[in-house]
Amino acid sequence: MFQHDKKPLHEVKVDRPNPNYAAMLQEQLGGANGELKAAMQYISQSFRVVDPEIRDMMLDIGAEELSHMEMVSMLITQLNGSNLQANNATIGEVETHVLTGLAPGLVNASGHPWTADYVNVTGDLVADLLSDIAAEMRAKVVYEYLHRQINDNGVRQTIDFLLNREEAHNQLFRKALGKVAQTGSNRDFGVTGDSKLYFNLSTPGGQAFDLSNIHPPH
Amino acid sequence: MFQHDKKPLHEVKVDRPNPNYAAMLQEQLGGANGELKAAMQYISQSFRVVDPEIRDMMLDIGAEELSHMEMVSMLITQLNGSNLQANNATIGEVETHVLTGLAPGLVNASGHPWTADYVNVTGDLVADLLSDIAAEMRAKVVYEYLHRQINDNGVRQTIDFLLNREEAHNQLFRKALGKVAQTGSNRDFGVTGDSKLYFNLSTPGGQAFDLSNIHPPH
Amino acid sequence: MFQHDKKPLHEVKVDRPNPNYAAMLQEQLGGANGELKAAMQYISQSFRVVDPEIRDMMLDIGAEELSHMEMVSMLITQLNGSNLQANNATIGEVETHVLTGLAPGLVNASGHPWTADYVNVTGDLVADLLSDIAAEMRAKVVYEYLHRQINDNGVRQTIDFLLNREEAHNQLFRKALGKVAQTGSNRDFGVTGDSKLYFNLSTPGGQAFDLSNIHPPH
Amino acid sequence: MFQHDKKPLHEVKVDRPNPNYAAMLQEQLGGANGELKAAMQYISQSFRVVDPEIRDMMLDIGAEELSHMEMVSMLITQLNGSNLQANNATIGEVETHVLTGLAPGLVNASGHPWTADYVNVTGDLVADLLSDIAAEMRAKVVYEYLHRQINDNGVRQTIDFLLNREEAHNQLFRKALGKVAQTGSNRDFGVTGDSKLYFNLSTPGGQAFDLSNIHPPH
Amino acid sequence: MFQHDKKPLHEVKVDRPNPNYAAMLQEQLGGANGELKAAMQYISQSFRVVDPEIRDMMLDIGAEELSHMEMVSMLITQLNGSNLQANNATIGEVETHVLTGLAPGLVNASGHPWTADYVNVTGDLVADLLSDIAAEMRAKVVYEYLHRQINDNGVRQTIDFLLNREEAHNQLFRKALGKVAQTGSNRDFGVTGDSKLYFNLSTPGGQAFDLSNIHPPH
Amino acid sequence: MFQHDKKPLHEVKVDRPNPNYAAMLQEQLGGANGELKAAMQYISQSFRVVDPEIRDMMLDIGAEELSHMEMVSMLITQLNGSNLQANNATIGEVETHVLTGLAPGLVNASGHPWTADYVNVTGDLVADLLSDIAAEMRAKVVYEYLHRQINDNGVRQTIDFLLNREEAHNQLFRKALGKVAQTGSNRDFGVTGDSKLYFNLSTPGGQAFDLSNIHPPH
Repeated sequence: MFQHDKKPLHEVKVDRPNPNYAAMLQEQLGGANGELKAAMQYISQSFRVVDPEIRDMMLDIGAEELSHMEMVSMLITQLNGSNLQANNATIGEVETHVLTGLAPGLVNASGHPWTADYVNVTGDLVADLLSDIAAEMRAKVVYEYLHRQINDNGVRQTIDFLLNREEAHNQLFRKALGKVAQTGSNRDFGVTGDSKLYFNLSTPGGQAFDLSNIHPPH
Repeated sequence: MFQHDKKPLHEVKVDRPNPNYAAMLQEQLGGANGELKAAMQYISQSFRVVDPEIRDMMLDIGAEELSHMEMVSMLITQLNGSNLQANNATIGEVETHVLTGLAPGLVNASGHPWTADYVNVTGDLVADLLSDIAAEMRAKVVYEYLHRQINDNGVRQTIDFLLNREEAHNQLFRKALGKVAQTGSNRDFGVTGDSKLYFNLSTPGGQAFDLSNIHPPH
Repeated sequence: MFQHDKKPLHEVKVDRPNPNYAAMLQEQLGGANGELKAAMQYISQSFRVVDPEIRDMMLDIGAEELSHMEMVSMLITQLNGSNLQANNATIGEVETHVLTGLAPGLVNASGHPWTADYVNVTGDLVADLLSDIAAEMRAKVVYEYLHRQINDNGVRQTIDFLLNREEAHNQLFRKALGKVAQTGSNRDFGVTGDSKLYFNLSTPGGQAFDLSNIHPPH
Repeated sequence: MFQHDKKPLHEVKVDRPNPNYAAMLQEQLGGANGELKAAMQYISQSFRVVDPEIRDMMLDIGAEELSHMEMVSMLITQLNGSNLQANNATIGEVETHVLTGLAPGLVNASGHPWTADYVNVTGDLVADLLSDIAAEMRAKVVYEYLHRQINDNGVRQTIDFLLNREEAHNQLFRKALGKVAQTGSNRDFGVTGDSKLYFNLSTPGGQAFDLSNIHPPH
Repeated sequence: MFQHDKKPLHEVKVDRPNPNYAAMLQEQLGGANGELKAAMQYISQSFRVVDPEIRDMMLDIGAEELSHMEMVSMLITQLNGSNLQANNATIGEVETHVLTGLAPGLVNASGHPWTADYVNVTGDLVADLLSDIAAEMRAKVVYEYLHRQINDNGVRQTIDFLLNREEAHNQLFRKALGKVAQTGSNRDFGVTGDSKLYFNLSTPGGQAFDLSNIHPPH
Repeated sequence: MFQHDKKPLHEVKVDRPNPNYAAMLQEQLGGANGELKAAMQYISQSFRVVDPEIRDMMLDIGAEELSHMEMVSMLITQLNGSNLQANNATIGEVETHVLTGLAPGLVNASGHPWTADYVNVTGDLVADLLSDIAAEMRAKVVYEYLHRQINDNGVRQTIDFLLNREEAHNQLFRKALGKVAQTGSNRDFGVTGDSKLYFNLSTPGGQAFDLSNIHPPH
């Protein structure tokens, strides 16, 4: 069961209203790599997981992502200020000014509504955890893009916190992937010699990467 | 902040697998009047509410709807059984059998992915609470339709529980509406004589309803 | 059958072109609470209604909403002027300037296309009429938001007219709801003591609203 | 302004209920080439047309398509019968049985909601009329597919009527196209020798069609 | 099979970055009449075509449209420059600046993601080719709108090329239509006297167009 | 530039028509992890990549995925046979039988149209390549699910080929990731001690995975 605690996961306090930046931040509320997507992906994946540790981890992180969603919503609410004037926001979605009365809606920075098409669930743990690792990395990249385009200290501190939490989740998902690496889709089909997954991604700076003789067939 | 408790809000135990009914139940997971819609609507509405009682109520009910979403997902998971065979389910969405590996995805009974277009947020409390009352009523109707089409006692008990909770929420939203009935959109614009809202809906069986002289202009 | 009369329901004449405001007004043409949504909702609901008065009322109001849609489209067309220059409109959707050649398209203020996901039809009269009452209230709120952000007298007069018509429809839907309040979803399921709907919303200013002891279960 | 007349454009009377066929017919209510699409396309295109004949024709045909939409909705309502049982319909969308209570919703045969992405408006009369001619042809083809898959005489007569009306509209749009063939997009850009449109489509059975020397560049 | 050649179909070189215009050009990458839509429509239509000439033509043009898509993507990439600053682009979608890191995403000018709802496939050659002719005309119109709103010579030259290619495709599709004009949907149903298609669109400047006595029934 | 070769990448020959399985296979044509998604993701990512090897690899694999899309479309076309009868297909989408005339449309197994919301592009190579690795793994899982539900040898051979190609692509993307592992999002932000990515996923069967002391904060 889910419960709500009146205290947010982390304090949210912007320096000053900034409707343009509020529109941009919508990307992490209702966008393809935003907090709602993350929450829904991990929660949806959990329901068929039999490993109790991984199942609990997915639901724990899912609940934390909901708490991030709350923080991003609070950030947007403060940034929107109290002035209902579409012309104040000269970029991105205008639903905030004509539809939601300055409340944060579940749309991305351009006004496209959130859709479950963003959510990846396959029921195969290896594929799902790889999807989660990739999702966390994309979420981090979007926070970096947003971080670079704001000087407000309050906003930056919140983004720093959220960005670092994505990293922590990424670590957890990679540990879980290590636990199940020899199962499921990674094991089922060994039809040809190259159908086995080797995660030799851990050797940065290793031997030069030569793609010249590894081309798809023509 | 949101937290997850390993114990579900209410026990979920189906009598036997039923992939067809699992597909139908998807409507209350990823459909227009389903639990995710309810959760997202109330949580999204809460962020600009200044009345602390109503704000907390919205977040409390929102958290409960997430817990309902968990229950519906558990129900679907049990109903899907463990047999990956699309032909077992002869109606509705087949994503369960070709995409999600029997895990519950965020789609409706026909496979249409959940979208934030279902969520109503206006930032006006009267309009938002009326939307919530109507949403709870629609959710109840869908549960009635689903209840009529299943004999499984375990499923029926869970639906009974969920349906009655929708009623309880409905009561809460109507009380909150009573508190704010003279504010916001209900008060702002009194342009003509009939622009004031009278909630005289409480007189069932009252005087006959005569529409004959209340027609829109031609 | 539907018919078109060359005369609009009400005169539409803006003071001067205003491409930015045209983009904002798209919300009431192709948006979640706009005129097309209203028309489609009432017309779609009507087809299974057996009460002839309510059925006719739904189709009458549906036809009027189509006429409102025509008025909003005329408003947008005049506001767009004749200058195909995307830079003239610095907020919201730009389809008008790159796709539709200044003709009003069925998108909202941010360019999201209209979708039937906005339309609520359950086949239960109580639920459908509550949905209609809520829909009219939301439509009124959006018109209020738009009214506050324009000084053009011609636009304001048209919005005043449309806003007051939403109120009139609201009255009609509430009367219809009174007529059917003891039927359908409101009566079918009386599983527990609180499963009966009491519309005691008619007592504004009544006793204080105390939510402290009416919390959802934890 | 639009008006509704209680009399349908043409009588609708099916021989017997057929929930499967009702699901298939949804394609012409809420699908890509259905009646709502046609109505919305012609009405939306009309608002910037200066030629009064063509403008009126678009609105007249638009109103007729709304009347077709009403007929298709009546057809579906009769075909759905009064038995709320998803298992009765073994193909296509199941929203009818879990969401709309047998009322016709604005979805296609597979349950995908209608979207304005189906509607083509460019503000250029030549392009818009060509789009209309193609749209009518596609609508006719879908009615043919549906006609072949039903034996019910009542359904067939209604489809015959609707299919023939598409043909009539096609004729009207082609006449209108003849009127404006030397204007707009057909004239504006004559950048190269082959940029002028010749509608030499009127010579069926003419000279053999040789594509061998008309290839796009490689 | 499809293959990629490192050389683009035609040189692409803009004079200078222009993020606003990059947003507008997204319409022809991820929009309703853009290059991806064209490619997907012709390729999808080809799979059931038995006439080898027409089938090959569809796949050839489909491949060329993919090459156009590559050109438009290169154009957008150059126009976006290297400055990640949402405020630089004051109109249209902002995904470029918060999500894709200046890479061209598959969205239209307002940020609406590309959808297969844009693609028309009926399996009937006459209907499909008419859809293609109309699609090419709409694509041309959008390029005209974009051409009028830019002074950059490099951009204009690329648009000129693409616009002329649409014309060439239009010619090819019309020739193909001539070849099959007496088949399929054009022949199958001759239910009434006016159900036969006459493509007398080839007589521009011919007899006056009189709609006065060709009205749909009331 | 893209080119089309009449020869498919690999022979496609089903044993016998199977409309139900054709509907299921739509998932890999127009679904979330299907061939069009893969093609569009890699091609879209390529445009800002400066490393010529990785850029070429993305476009090469993108072209191969388009060739897979062609193969899946041919598979579906053969499986659909020549019998236009919706009742023949008792599961999944029915667009094939009412809209596309047995031609393969760009929808998933349940009839949901393909959308660019499936495509992940961030402009950061590490994030994009991780997304590609996850995407290939999901595609493989879906092919496994489809493989288990068919006995047709011709279909199985084609799926075997496609599934093994996903593996080959996965290898290529992982090699490319190794090359760039110390760049971009993986390097930019080292805000806290755990913000650095370690790909220690390469030690399958290594030390036991203990999540007990790595929980997100409460």
